[in-house]
Amino acid sequence: MHTTEELQQKISDLFDTLNYMSEPQELYEPIQYSLSQGGKRLRPLLSFMACSLYGGKIEEVTNAAIGLEIFHNFTLLHDDIMDKSPLRRGMPSVYKKWDLNTAILSGDTMFVVAYEYVTNTKAEYLVDTLKVFNATAREVCEGQQYDMNFETQKITTIDNYMEMIRLKTAVLIAAALKIGAISANASKEEQQRIYDFGILIGLAFQLRDDYLDAFGDQVVFGKPIGNDIVTNKKTYLYLRAYELADAQKTIMLNEAFNINDSSKKVKEVLGIYNELNIRTETENIITKLYDESFDLLQNVDRPEEEKAAFYSFLKKLIKREV
Amino acid sequence: MHTTEELQQKISDLFDTLNYMSEPQELYEPIQYSLSQGGKRLRPLLSFMACSLYGGKIEEVTNAAIGLEIFHNFTLLHDDIMDKSPLRRGMPSVYKKWDLNTAILSGDTMFVVAYEYVTNTKAEYLVDTLKVFNATAREVCEGQQYDMNFETQKITTIDNYMEMIRLKTAVLIAAALKIGAISANASKEEQQRIYDFGILIGLAFQLRDDYLDAFGDQVVFGKPIGNDIVTNKKTYLYLRAYELADAQKTIMLNEAFNINDSSKKVKEVLGIYNELNIRTETENIITKLYDESFDLLQNVDRPEEEKAAFYSFLKKLIKREV
Repeated sequence: MHTTEELQQKISDLFDTLNYMSEPQELYEPIQYSLSQGGKRLRPLLSFMACSLYGGKIEEVTNAAIGLEIFHNFTLLHDDIMDKSPLRRGMPSVYKKWDLNTAILSGDTMFVVAYEYVTNTKAEYLVDTLKVFNATAREVCEGQQYDMNFETQKITTIDNYMEMIRLKTAVLIAAALKIGAISANASKEEQQRIYDFGILIGLAFQLRDDYLDAFGDQVVFGKPIGNDIVTNKKTYLYLRAYELADAQKTIMLNEAFNINDSSKKVKEVLGIYNELNIRTETENIITKLYDESFDLLQNVDRPEEEKAAFYSFLKKLIKREV
Repeated sequence: MHTTEELQQKISDLFDTLNYMSEPQELYEPIQYSLSQGGKRLRPLLSFMACSLYGGKIEEVTNAAIGLEIFHNFTLLHDDIMDKSPLRRGMPSVYKKWDLNTAILSGDTMFVVAYEYVTNTKAEYLVDTLKVFNATAREVCEGQQYDMNFETQKITTIDNYMEMIRLKTAVLIAAALKIGAISANASKEEQQRIYDFGILIGLAFQLRDDYLDAFGDQVVFGKPIGNDIVTNKKTYLYLRAYELADAQKTIMLNEAFNINDSSKKVKEVLGIYNELNIRTETENIITKLYDESFDLLQNVDRPEEEKAAFYSFLKKLIKREV
């Protein structure tokens, strides 16, 4: 089995060698730009880790892993249009740097390129890999739609929110792990186990993102603190606060979320969050997901020391320390 | 071998049974709307015809054929955004009926659905089918980019134009035929032959479209005559006219294309086209492509009477009589 550091290095080297440029350059330059910005390459790493955990050769999952990373970047590119996000990883997003049409069409082309890589999967794993990839791609689109629906819905429940982040974020993390298991010829039962494990990890990962927006260290987090509050984003924290608030606190929340001055708004909302114990509430649910994922991993049919290394990395991941 | 009419009926029945609705309905309603508008279902028909020509069972190509039709409709949906086309088949286009975000995300989802169908291709034909599908999807995106580039380029040559319509239109027609041949287990040589044949037919099909815009019968054509002229679209006619024009005629063309009144503009431009013999010029190149495609079909290793039936339909198709 490879160490996580070895796999991270392999992925970094791999992506450094990839070149997406072709003609017409108006189409491919934004793809090259988008895929050269780096990011954590988390999804291919998870595929490599799962493949390695189940005793497979990482060469078998390399093409699908690249496909997953390109697919992920394609969704970010189109999401940035839909969410009107001017920045991605500190750089202008594609629709801002070029224009709407370029972002639509370059995104579509990235999606094809992702499928080209997946298609190069070894014949014996191809159909299973494609089926996971297709189902996941569809679910990620559904998740984005639910996310957009939330913007205009008056009432969003925590159940609906958890389902949205399952679709938008967790399924792709779970799929990356499952595709790694497929490429290692793991049993259907193990494929499902690592997938279910991935869902729990993916949910925890997203909730940690919500948590850090309010309670994180700006330097570590890499984004301005309180951005979700400023934009009235319906995060777990927001929804849980309204769930726990009595009539008086509900009015206070409404008033705080209507404040125009950003820093005053963040301060006021955080004040109410603290009174409602939202920090501990969120820590508790993350811990619960983390405990459940650990229970699932216990049943994975692999040597304990290999599972331990695997889990140790994912624990850091949830804490967003990697 | 099936008759074309039988195959058309099978396709019509097939698409009548398909249902794309799922949750969230905000995502799937535009897909259902887009795929229920009909159209000629030309691409699946070509797959069925090629499969049947090569003695295959059409059941073997059905999933890929549906995938091709859904892919084609996905490209129309995104093209309508990029080209700002408010209408599609006489109905509001998706971005007009809903909005930009809906059109982007429903289109992305249609693309996934297309791949889901292609993935259901029988294992022995899957990799070859996927490779044709991937390469074609990428080329169609490239063609759309070249088409958009032409809008802002001062000089566009006929060679560049032919390459653009090859990518944007002809490769998908050729791919539909090739995928039919793959599903009939035709040899690689025959797959390539029917593909090359499809490129010629596809080019002729697009040039006929250009031709009918200027010289067609509005009732038969189904679109207003002269729309390409009104919008200064760089069609084969436009480019050939500028190629043939001397200095004086070039000035006349420039002036005519600058007229604001649409009916006067169409009349003036058509007048110059007639003086430059553009009608015969365009008929000649269509005939040339048609003759070349006939030569290719001669070499197809199938009984003459079956090729004759196949060709008779495609001849009608190029003339846009079907």
